[in-house]
Formats: sequence, structure tokens, C-alpha cells
Amino acid sequence: MQTKTKNKTINNNPIGIFDSGFGGLTVMSTIDEVFPLESFVYFGDTAHVPYGSKSKDTVVKYSKEIASFLVKCKVKLIVIACNTASAFALPILKKTLKIPVIGVVKPGSKAAVFASKNKKIGVIGTEGTIGSKSYLREINKISRCKVYQQACPLLVPLVEEGWNDAEVTASIVQKYVEPLLDKQIDTLVLGCTHYPLLKKTLKKNVGEKIILIDSAEATADEVRNILNKKHLLANTKNKKFLRFYVSDNPGKFKRIGSRFFSKKIFNVKKIEMSC
Amino acid sequence: MQTKTKNKTINNNPIGIFDSGFGGLTVMSTIDEVFPLESFVYFGDTAHVPYGSKSKDTVVKYSKEIASFLVKCKVKLIVIACNTASAFALPILKKTLKIPVIGVVKPGSKAAVFASKNKKIGVIGTEGTIGSKSYLREINKISRCKVYQQACPLLVPLVEEGWNDAEVTASIVQKYVEPLLDKQIDTLVLGCTHYPLLKKTLKKNVGEKIILIDSAEATADEVRNILNKKHLLANTKNKKFLRFYVSDNPGKFKRIGSRFFSKKIFNVKKIEMSC
Repeated sequence: MQTKTKNKTINNNPIGIFDSGFGGLTVMSTIDEVFPLESFVYFGDTAHVPYGSKSKDTVVKYSKEIASFLVKCKVKLIVIACNTASAFALPILKKTLKIPVIGVVKPGSKAAVFASKNKKIGVIGTEGTIGSKSYLREINKISRCKVYQQACPLLVPLVEEGWNDAEVTASIVQKYVEPLLDKQIDTLVLGCTHYPLLKKTLKKNVGEKIILIDSAEATADEVRNILNKKHLLANTKNKKFLRFYVSDNPGKFKRIGSRFFSKKIFNVKKIEMSC
Repeated sequence: MQTKTKNKTINNNPIGIFDSGFGGLTVMSTIDEVFPLESFVYFGDTAHVPYGSKSKDTVVKYSKEIASFLVKCKVKLIVIACNTASAFALPILKKTLKIPVIGVVKPGSKAAVFASKNKKIGVIGTEGTIGSKSYLREINKISRCKVYQQACPLLVPLVEEGWNDAEVTASIVQKYVEPLLDKQIDTLVLGCTHYPLLKKTLKKNVGEKIILIDSAEATADEVRNILNKKHLLANTKNKKFLRFYVSDNPGKFKRIGSRFFSKKIFNVKKIEMSC
């Protein structure tokens, strides 16, 4: 579907985005704002959510099947909008797929290194992401920094419960970030796609001086680079579409997903996964 | 493996127990205490945990595959030690399997009706269990009671984080049980196998007057009835065994599972599930 008009190449195929559930919708929302002419296919693996507490082998198996589905949907680029899947499955999908694949860990790491002045960076994420040390490795590939990690298993269920601004959420956030603040970090990476919804609570806890890195924004920049470099930008005008697929519970996805996507979600289809 | 000695029939085959993860270990622990001569095979579906937020179809699919595995292990009885799977899969497994199958909802409901004087019963559980209304239906089959339900999606991750006695846990528990206390319940069903670990915090919040129903204890009574009625009691003496299988992360299961089982867990094997 790549057509050449004058000096510009146009590719109106959609961008594929996947996550274990709703979280990736914060990434899609940001990319959609930056690229209003792009179409999107989103896959939320709600039959297997959450990935954060599962092993590498299992997350890779799920990610491979979702990527095959997205390729069948003729996506031109895949964004792994899930930190755990980015940490575990990105290298394998990059090797095996013919289209470009990007994760959220590298863009988030780049943005953190760029923002930090004292080179002391904190990372919060799920058990899986923190255990994989992917941010630690990625940040140190770019620059020598002190990286302090903290797994925060309760933040995803708190966000899904909709308690983003509740007092208990603030207490739990405080309990998690305190050890990082003790290390005098000046930058904090939100290493989970659910966490942008906790920005207000996080800001109150860490203070205004600490820079919060939302990897959704950093990932949108990376998407821009690839679309430009590979001449994949779309110009859909009135033909833009957003499609949503899940492996379980389309009704719940429609209901809760809208909070993450900041827009109403229509037409969610359930796809039966074989694994 | 059924042998007859004098007037007694003995069956040394193990009891099969399954859950989406660790929670069922609280049930197994209670049954093991009551029946020290029984052997057990436990399956924790850690590749798909948690069941509480998933749809009926998906939970039934997982439960069927686990039950087939347990039957291959020659279990003489299956205990579905998970409230969500009991709510969704018990009728189907009862129909399709030749061995007896019991869940935790019916025994818990019976015990609640028996305990309640004012016939106002509260039920707390996961989203799946509460949404299925299985306790509500089961309690009303036995006796006309007012049943007040409350989904508590944060309690499972709080227990898995090990924050059973933390202040934030007490605040969250309070937030969940307050609407039930307003209805003047005199009995509260712990409709999730993780919740027995929160008994202390729950007791502090609901006061000494409200009776907490731990379905593990009620289920052990039901197991006793069936083993007696069907002449399936074991007499393993020194041949008793405990076997643990999971669908993901055996290391984590060994580590965290011991807290739920109240004993050290050895030899956890990973089984690849096809779904």
C-alpha cells in the first residue's frame, strides 16, 4: 500500500500497538495525538493480563502470537506498548519480523539520560520489568548513570480500580518512592504504561524538582524517527481508522479502556488466542 | 488403587486441588491439617493468574485443561480451590468428570447461612466472583438471606506483596467493608482464597461481633463428607506425598507459596499448558 506522490512516499497502513491490557492505550493516545493522520490497530492481551508477574518464556510466547496477528492486519510498524513485553520480547520480534518494531524501554531510557543532570535516575515498574533490569542496562548503554530500581506491584491494580487520586494510593506511592528519593535521584522513569495516570499523585510525592519521564512521549518521538526515515508516514485524510482487539472481556475493555485512551472506545473485537 | 481391609475401603490416590495461583494453598493447607494421611497434587495456573478479572469462557477453558491434567495424575477427587473457577467452571467439570468435584462457594455459603443470626450476610471477593453472583445464588438456595456483595480487586495484590498487616492495607480493607457494615451484616464470607491471610486486619476493621467465614475450613468439611460417603479415605502412613505443579514461574511459586501453605514448599514442576 506504499504510494509515491510527487516527492513524498505515503503508506496508509496502520500502526500496530500491543500491550497485556489497557496500559498501552496511554502510549497509543500520545502517538495518536502526535500523528492525527495515522490509523491504528491495538491488541490488548486481556486473557493473559498482567505480564508483569510472568516469566520471560511465557511473555515471549504471547508476544509472538500477537505480533503474527498484527502482521496479518497489515500493520507497517509495531509498537510494544508494554514495558514487560518490551524488556522480554523486543530482541526476538526485531529479529523475526520484516517490519520495524519498537519498544518503550529504549525511548524512555534515552529521555531519562537526556533529562538527568546529576546522573542519578530512579525507575519504577512492574516486577517483570524491574527484574529484567532492562532500563538499567539500556540507560547504561547510553551513559554511565546510577540507576535505582523499585518494583511497584500495587500501582497497576490501583489504577485499574480508578483510585488514581485516592489517599491510600498516595501512601502506597510514597512507600515505593521513598527509597529512591533517599538516593537523591533527579529523574524518575515511569516504567509502566499505567503510571501516566498517576502523574499527579507522583508529582505530589516526589516534588516539583524531580523530572518524571513518561515513556509514551519518548516513544512517540521514536515513532516519528522511524516513519520519517523509512518513508512510512500516512495521509489518510478521511480514511483514518482505530481498531481494537482483545483476547478476553471486550465489554470491560471498552468501559475501562476509555479512561486510559482519554476518548471513548467503540468496536472492540475478541480474538481467540491459541496459547 | 482402591483396596479393602476388613470393613474399611482405602483409596491412597491423591486429592487434586487447583487454583489460578497461590491462593488455593490456604485451602490445601487446611485440608492437609484435617487429613494428615491424604496425599495431594496441587496445580497453580500461574501463567494465567489472576482469574478474578477474566471472563467465564476463558476461566472455563483453563479449568478444563487443568482438570484433565489432574485426572492423568490419578486424583480421586478434585477441589477447585479458587472462588472464580468454582463460580464459573464447577457445573461443567461436575458434568464431564467421573470423579467427584467440589468448589469453595457452596461450602462457604452453607457455613455463612449456618452462622448468621440476622440473615444479613456480606461477601467480599474478586471482580469475577462477585460479578458471577455465585455466593448470592448459593446462599439463597439454602435460606432467604439479604446478601451484600463487594468486589475488592486490590486485596489479592496486597497479600501477594506481603503487606497483610500494613496500615495502607487496613485503610483499603476499611474502604471496601464500610458499605457492608452500613447494612448491618453479622457474617462476612471471605470469598477469595487469598483473604484468610488478611483475617487479622479484617477482624480489626469489622470488630469482634461479625463472624468471618473462611471457606477453606468449610471446604475441608465437605471433603470429609465425600471421602466418607464414597469410601475414599486414604491410609498412606509413610507413603504420603505432596506434589506441586504450575504453568509458569516455579521459583516464584516456591518462594511466595510457602507463605500461603504455612510450610516450606519443595519440588515445584512447570507444566506447559496448551491454552
